[in-house]
Amino acid sequence: MTFKRDKMIRWGYCDAAGIIYFPRYAELCNDLVEDLFCEALDTTLFTLTQELRLGIPFVNLNMDFLAPSILNDILEFELGITAMGRSSITFYIAARCGEEERLRATLKVAMISMDTRRAIQIDDNWRGKFAPFMSSPPTT
Amino acid sequence: MTFKRDKMIRWGYCDAAGIIYFPRYAELCNDLVEDLFCEALDTTLFTLTQELRLGIPFVNLNMDFLAPSILNDILEFELGITAMGRSSITFYIAARCGEEERLRATLKVAMISMDTRRAIQIDDNWRGKFAPFMSSPPTT
Amino acid sequence: MTFKRDKMIRWGYCDAAGIIYFPRYAELCNDLVEDLFCEALDTTLFTLTQELRLGIPFVNLNMDFLAPSILNDILEFELGITAMGRSSITFYIAARCGEEERLRATLKVAMISMDTRRAIQIDDNWRGKFAPFMSSPPTT
Amino acid sequence: MTFKRDKMIRWGYCDAAGIIYFPRYAELCNDLVEDLFCEALDTTLFTLTQELRLGIPFVNLNMDFLAPSILNDILEFELGITAMGRSSITFYIAARCGEEERLRATLKVAMISMDTRRAIQIDDNWRGKFAPFMSSPPTT
Repeated sequence: MTFKRDKMIRWGYCDAAGIIYFPRYAELCNDLVEDLFCEALDTTLFTLTQELRLGIPFVNLNMDFLAPSILNDILEFELGITAMGRSSITFYIAARCGEEERLRATLKVAMISMDTRRAIQIDDNWRGKFAPFMSSPPTT
Repeated sequence: MTFKRDKMIRWGYCDAAGIIYFPRYAELCNDLVEDLFCEALDTTLFTLTQELRLGIPFVNLNMDFLAPSILNDILEFELGITAMGRSSITFYIAARCGEEERLRATLKVAMISMDTRRAIQIDDNWRGKFAPFMSSPPTT
Repeated sequence: MTFKRDKMIRWGYCDAAGIIYFPRYAELCNDLVEDLFCEALDTTLFTLTQELRLGIPFVNLNMDFLAPSILNDILEFELGITAMGRSSITFYIAARCGEEERLRATLKVAMISMDTRRAIQIDDNWRGKFAPFMSSPPTT
Repeated sequence: MTFKRDKMIRWGYCDAAGIIYFPRYAELCNDLVEDLFCEALDTTLFTLTQELRLGIPFVNLNMDFLAPSILNDILEFELGITAMGRSSITFYIAARCGEEERLRATLKVAMISMDTRRAIQIDDNWRGKFAPFMSSPPTT
């Protein structure tokens, strides 16, 4: 199973060349992970960080910008989990407009304690929540 | 005395119309207040919020967009304090490119305790630091 | 009739004090106007600016920050039109979380020709589209 | 030779965990390339895109987040060019706070014609301008 959400390229996302300002894609990747937690894992980032005292800082973000997106394009963002380590999760993210792939990204996050700021082992409860989203990235 | 800093309209600040994306001006106003604290008041916002446990949330921001700014324009931002209340400070901000005024803003902030999240009285030490920047807004 | 949309305060909207970074409200106001055009007026900003060659730059934005919003709050944004001039439109925007009003804003935009960059008269077709959203701001 | 600029982690760059919001690093990388063009190559992005009709869209951005940065940290950003292809340039970017490396990134851009939106060959004039910044990434 993968997690999919449509995102519109808003006025404020575009740059003076009339295409998406590339750093905005990093924000859209962050938003997509937030959507996953809020909508599919039933845990808002407020609950995660303030109540459960868990954080998921980025460890690595790699983005291939395959084709430009322009104002008001609707992109389908798809997220899957390609690997779970002791304390890390690796996501792939692919964004398409119609048939055209625009962005292919991998994002690795660590699970940390917000109190110690150190990586912690992802427990079985969380592994069970993430497991349905284990998926290979699409081949294109 | 007023506080002045030059700011360049960066690539990432511009929108699909090739001019500044207006919400970025709100960020530039926030940056200017941060510059004032860091550079003129010898107190970074880290020191203010984490060590002194004081916050300065916005109460009101009013911005008149007088003329558009384009990519790589250098704007001179000028800030003065027009009023100090019991727990509030009102700034005016004017941004010019050469002779042309581009932005005229007023920004009111409150001084709060980060612990209680309530407004507190601005003490004489702070009043003394702010006093040199009391200034009337420029007439144009 | 007013135009309403829910917006979640995302991770990326919050600042080091754990509340919304105030300049983000300016972006959310911009987003709301974009939503109005895309969803209620059947005209994306791409169509407006690229095909119809019309722009709607901000003239004034006034924001009262009534109470702080925190991570993952869901705010109901409401927009109405309080005035239409020869070439300008004035919106009010109110954002609430449950019963609590968080933001009250007024936003004035001008309608311009993207070719001449000058204000133009809002024609009857557009006046007819905007008319249903004429509304007085809520009294609180 | 490498290109270095200090950047402060501003209030608006931090997230609800009190550290830099990671997507902001993508923006800081974009800013650093803009600084290189404006300050070291004597060509603003306005001149590049509007007068010379050349664009430099991102092709790939890879960022390793090595250690968190907090509010008002001053980071030294260093940029070097590791490769020049027919129409592409690959930069490395390293950001340090004191002795600690915080970010290690590689950024590949293409040179395109703003008129055709197609990649073009980087000419000898530009190669000459970029050549002094050819550099191996620091080993850490």
